[in-house]
Amino acid sequence: MKLVRFGKPGCEKPGLIDGNGQIRDASSVVADISSVTLGEGALARLGQVDATTLPLAPAGERLGPCIGKVGNFVAIGLNYADHAAETGAPIPAEPIIFNKAPSCIVGPHDDVILPRGSQKGDWEVELAIVIGERASYVGANEALEFVAGYCVCNDVSEREYQMERGGTWTKGKGCPTFGPLGPWLVTPDEIADPHNLSMWLDVNSERMQTGSTRTMIFNIAQIVSYVSHFMILEAGDVITTGTPPGVGMGMKPQRFLKPGDVMSLGIEGLGEQRQRVMAFEGSLLDTSHPGHGHTRP
Amino acid sequence: MKLVRFGKPGCEKPGLIDGNGQIRDASSVVADISSVTLGEGALARLGQVDATTLPLAPAGERLGPCIGKVGNFVAIGLNYADHAAETGAPIPAEPIIFNKAPSCIVGPHDDVILPRGSQKGDWEVELAIVIGERASYVGANEALEFVAGYCVCNDVSEREYQMERGGTWTKGKGCPTFGPLGPWLVTPDEIADPHNLSMWLDVNSERMQTGSTRTMIFNIAQIVSYVSHFMILEAGDVITTGTPPGVGMGMKPQRFLKPGDVMSLGIEGLGEQRQRVMAFEGSLLDTSHPGHGHTRP
Repeated sequence: MKLVRFGKPGCEKPGLIDGNGQIRDASSVVADISSVTLGEGALARLGQVDATTLPLAPAGERLGPCIGKVGNFVAIGLNYADHAAETGAPIPAEPIIFNKAPSCIVGPHDDVILPRGSQKGDWEVELAIVIGERASYVGANEALEFVAGYCVCNDVSEREYQMERGGTWTKGKGCPTFGPLGPWLVTPDEIADPHNLSMWLDVNSERMQTGSTRTMIFNIAQIVSYVSHFMILEAGDVITTGTPPGVGMGMKPQRFLKPGDVMSLGIEGLGEQRQRVMAFEGSLLDTSHPGHGHTRP
Repeated sequence: MKLVRFGKPGCEKPGLIDGNGQIRDASSVVADISSVTLGEGALARLGQVDATTLPLAPAGERLGPCIGKVGNFVAIGLNYADHAAETGAPIPAEPIIFNKAPSCIVGPHDDVILPRGSQKGDWEVELAIVIGERASYVGANEALEFVAGYCVCNDVSEREYQMERGGTWTKGKGCPTFGPLGPWLVTPDEIADPHNLSMWLDVNSERMQTGSTRTMIFNIAQIVSYVSHFMILEAGDVITTGTPPGVGMGMKPQRFLKPGDVMSLGIEGLGEQRQRVMAFEGSLLDTSHPGHGHTRP
């Protein structure tokens, strides 16, 4: 299945992509596609439905993040050997774990807003794992049983905040709008081999990143198993798994996002994202902001 | 107000402490004390109630974490000058931010379980801030308006995982049961000065930490303001604000937790916690585990 959430920020409805690529409104089957409903068997219920029996969603609806109410947004750093090299970091001996604030999650085509005064916004196309059920101390041999599906993530980053402001990477990874997820949550049965998917990212139609999930250092099963030894993973938690070469920080000279830029990115079988880059203006507190309501029930 | 959540893990009811220190069942007033209900005005509704008109909670009920469904559990590192010194780290120029997994949150008297094979479990008594409403780019002069209240947090840590396993501190901070919160969520009107509260932690009745919130490097308003410039804070998010000297890692020789130890800790006006330290045994996946259901709606 390819699952989506469509509608206004904070009010998204669940949807299924039918055989013609159209969105079917699945709100008669499940209330949402979220940490809550995944834990209640939403995928099994959706799997029993013939998508063509569901009403078409209205044309032109905004896509929200493909998973709602994410409780923990975990990220793996430097998980592609070539990317580690371009940043000047050694290849890690074990996975590097950091966090993105769940409040940074937005839809796949929502605007990405550079933080106030930001000079070093950067892009990272990544395959993200959505956890399907509570996982603790799971072995790599069983880890894939805990995966609900995969999606594209742009692990948007602010390199000054990440690297030059003291402490851990947290400051540069969870700014509002820094976590576009989607368009689709793709269940594992749709993906023949998640470790052989091409991936790419353009800025203003210029190719920046070209890679394949084939060159991950730690594979999906290893990552889920590893993280579950340090924290309990819950249904709906997201783990984004690192980026291939081509980030702005690794270029010579370095190149960073500026207002008006357009990022487009995709992973084979998981769909494409497109974000305009905007300057920060005014407040992010009003309910019309895409981030509003995504992370809370 | 002093607010509690009492009952079995994942099924806690909201409660109010009355003038005699007894728990009154407030489930007729609010459904819970959580990220959901804080955002819906739970504190205002509870503030209008005469606690003595509510039924007494059954005697001997377990206390759960004083805030439910925490969406983001942020922590500030090295925020007491003397603690920074004992760890050998310089005094930070700006707050150090890291994350604890929300799935580590437990009640104030629940067992703390050392991870499988853990050798370097450690303690940290801290004042934690509970956010009352969505905050983004707030100034220090207005930051306290976004605070719902304060509570005791034991920022339990595994120092090998934190320091010796590569990457950020995340690995040693979010293990299951590493986040006891409570006993009470204390609203700001109850605390004359949150920056003049004595705090202490004993292991097996031996005093390990003695300090005061007076020696914080960055104060509460500065912390809330600072964090809100890097991520959107939501109602129910928790920020724990650092620990005074006396952690096991800072001792010569170093001293770490072992099964059978008992930690007791408290902060003036915010109450006391007590945790037995247990070895990891078996699975944390069953629903009787204290962590179960705390972090999801």
